[in-house]
Amino acid sequence: MPPPATLSASSSFTLLSPSPSPKPKFPPFSPKRHSFAINPRHHSLHSVPSSTVRCTVIEKETPEAQRPDTFLRANSSSSSVRARFEKMIREAQDTVCAAIEAADGGATFKEDVWSRPGGGGGISRVLQDGAVWEKAGVNVSVVYGVMPPEAYRAAKGAAAADHKPGPVPFFASGISSVLHPKNPFAPTLHFNYRSPGAPRQWWFGGGTDLTPAYIFEEDVKHFHSVQKSACDKFDPTFYPRFKKWCDDYFYIKHRDERRGLGGIFFDDLNDYDQEMLLSFATECANSVVPAYVPIIEKRKDLPFTDQQKAWQQLRRGRYVEFNLVYDRGTTFGLKTGGRIESILVSLPLTARWEYDHKPEEGSEEWKLLDACINPKEWV
Amino acid sequence: MPPPATLSASSSFTLLSPSPSPKPKFPPFSPKRHSFAINPRHHSLHSVPSSTVRCTVIEKETPEAQRPDTFLRANSSSSSVRARFEKMIREAQDTVCAAIEAADGGATFKEDVWSRPGGGGGISRVLQDGAVWEKAGVNVSVVYGVMPPEAYRAAKGAAAADHKPGPVPFFASGISSVLHPKNPFAPTLHFNYRSPGAPRQWWFGGGTDLTPAYIFEEDVKHFHSVQKSACDKFDPTFYPRFKKWCDDYFYIKHRDERRGLGGIFFDDLNDYDQEMLLSFATECANSVVPAYVPIIEKRKDLPFTDQQKAWQQLRRGRYVEFNLVYDRGTTFGLKTGGRIESILVSLPLTARWEYDHKPEEGSEEWKLLDACINPKEWV
Repeated sequence: MPPPATLSASSSFTLLSPSPSPKPKFPPFSPKRHSFAINPRHHSLHSVPSSTVRCTVIEKETPEAQRPDTFLRANSSSSSVRARFEKMIREAQDTVCAAIEAADGGATFKEDVWSRPGGGGGISRVLQDGAVWEKAGVNVSVVYGVMPPEAYRAAKGAAAADHKPGPVPFFASGISSVLHPKNPFAPTLHFNYRSPGAPRQWWFGGGTDLTPAYIFEEDVKHFHSVQKSACDKFDPTFYPRFKKWCDDYFYIKHRDERRGLGGIFFDDLNDYDQEMLLSFATECANSVVPAYVPIIEKRKDLPFTDQQKAWQQLRRGRYVEFNLVYDRGTTFGLKTGGRIESILVSLPLTARWEYDHKPEEGSEEWKLLDACINPKEWV
Repeated sequence: MPPPATLSASSSFTLLSPSPSPKPKFPPFSPKRHSFAINPRHHSLHSVPSSTVRCTVIEKETPEAQRPDTFLRANSSSSSVRARFEKMIREAQDTVCAAIEAADGGATFKEDVWSRPGGGGGISRVLQDGAVWEKAGVNVSVVYGVMPPEAYRAAKGAAAADHKPGPVPFFASGISSVLHPKNPFAPTLHFNYRSPGAPRQWWFGGGTDLTPAYIFEEDVKHFHSVQKSACDKFDPTFYPRFKKWCDDYFYIKHRDERRGLGGIFFDDLNDYDQEMLLSFATECANSVVPAYVPIIEKRKDLPFTDQQKAWQQLRRGRYVEFNLVYDRGTTFGLKTGGRIESILVSLPLTARWEYDHKPEEGSEEWKLLDACINPKEWV
């Protein structure tokens, strides 16, 4: 008997996420632009190579003028775990965006609301080229319905082989965010909390992790301490387990190094009480601002050199490598025809690759790299 | 009976390529740095996540002080197809590097020679941050021996399942190059000619393709005309077949667009006379400079705006997406533990991702994108 279908792939932006703008995605190139039946794309192709037919299996999202009170069905109970999880992630989105705008001191998020004909929708917010932020994206989505068997196979791989044919019911909701500051001493933050579910079941996964270009030990300790405090309120084994899980997940295999200095990460937790998991999810999401914003306040205006900026850009290159090559949410989204701009909003505005760059032993750049190669205990 | 083992994955930099510098790759971090038995890496890991153990199956290369006359075994005949192919790619490397340096007018290539204990070696040349070139890499390699079954499986995937256990003999040689100019009106060029082989057999694959950020129709026509002339000397069906193959190969699925404006691409040609294929390979390699350098000469000093530079950087972002997500040589190299700096020298020095960027309909940027979405016939 196969497990109930869930979508738990994402550590970055969720597959079924956002369709920002209410205007057409792209100027029409030809009368054939709506020639794709399942997922009409924003432009047509005169020829689709037979060897590379896209797996566009997720139905197209529809822009909406207004945020609905809930993305769940009208007859849903507001006391269900799903409803309370949606309320929590939407409050977290508001709180994080308000804190990010306050830290910037001028720039504001652009919001796009969208719905899916099959069920659910989402709210995408992106702030680009602010005073403090190079690119900051905070997305929530609550999607459900049935997915075509092709999408189920893409999500589950070989494990889907024995699943009965036909459409597969799914439910997935979550909040996803990547925040890239401009100043090379101000670290990038990523967090994602999600609850893929199935009838009468509930899962929970996610994490928060820090990616600096330079180490300020007090910053990293502060960040990890807040994660540990959140975990310790629920289970003393959580922080050590989820800290290691994070170091393992954000591993750039071909470099033998991690993307950054970690935090916490976990997937498909379901061997705990639902109410406890919902409380833990809420605690984690509420910890984002106190764990991160004080660091930004301290570092956002520090003076820096061109060399320090170039090093940040090299580390941003590693961010791109991890996300495009390994991140499950990104690679799954690219394969299944998710909305590309939402999936790739996690990429930095700019990145750099120098041939055979080696930081000088003992330098600040070397120390960061060493900590990415040899994960440390920070608290 | 399985086919003889060949390595034909690469369209970019070859897996078994270069080990540039004669000094250690990275300052030692700890006494454990040589703790990997198969492939001692340039640094140690305190912990390797069990879920992400690297597939480091290719033995480590050794830096060499001097270029050998040949990378083939001492007893090889200089009249063999392999020997003449090596001579051809090494001459092509010299010719292309000389032309690139002349166009730059100052910067020179840094050369790294390396050998593999198991057989063969290569010559890597990289020019970075010149007057005209942002990053230019031209690599040749001639490698052979036996590969561990893990590497064979990584190369062949499911097709390797029925192969008899134990080490698999292989031979692969080729020239690979990516040339990224600074000026947004000067296009990027990629070419790769390779001959994976097996005992008593010979294959040939490769191609040359152009990736501009702006279309100068005369440039694209000139480039494609030179490719067509080279093809037409051998078979009038080559250009149309290989032009379409190129459009199909350099397809960024998740964008529904091609990386650039194509050229020619083909893989595993072996249904022709060996001498004919060697002549065709030679003709293709000799066509690189006349197809490309005249375009650079015309465009390298054109004035440009910040907006035009930013558009070039966005297109460089697409280059990164293609190479990291789809390019067979790159993805195979990353999986099998090839030398990362050589594999990723194909990435641009800098790249850019803007959220939901849409060129204005009818603009020069829009025209380029249109041609990447709807491949055109240029000659």
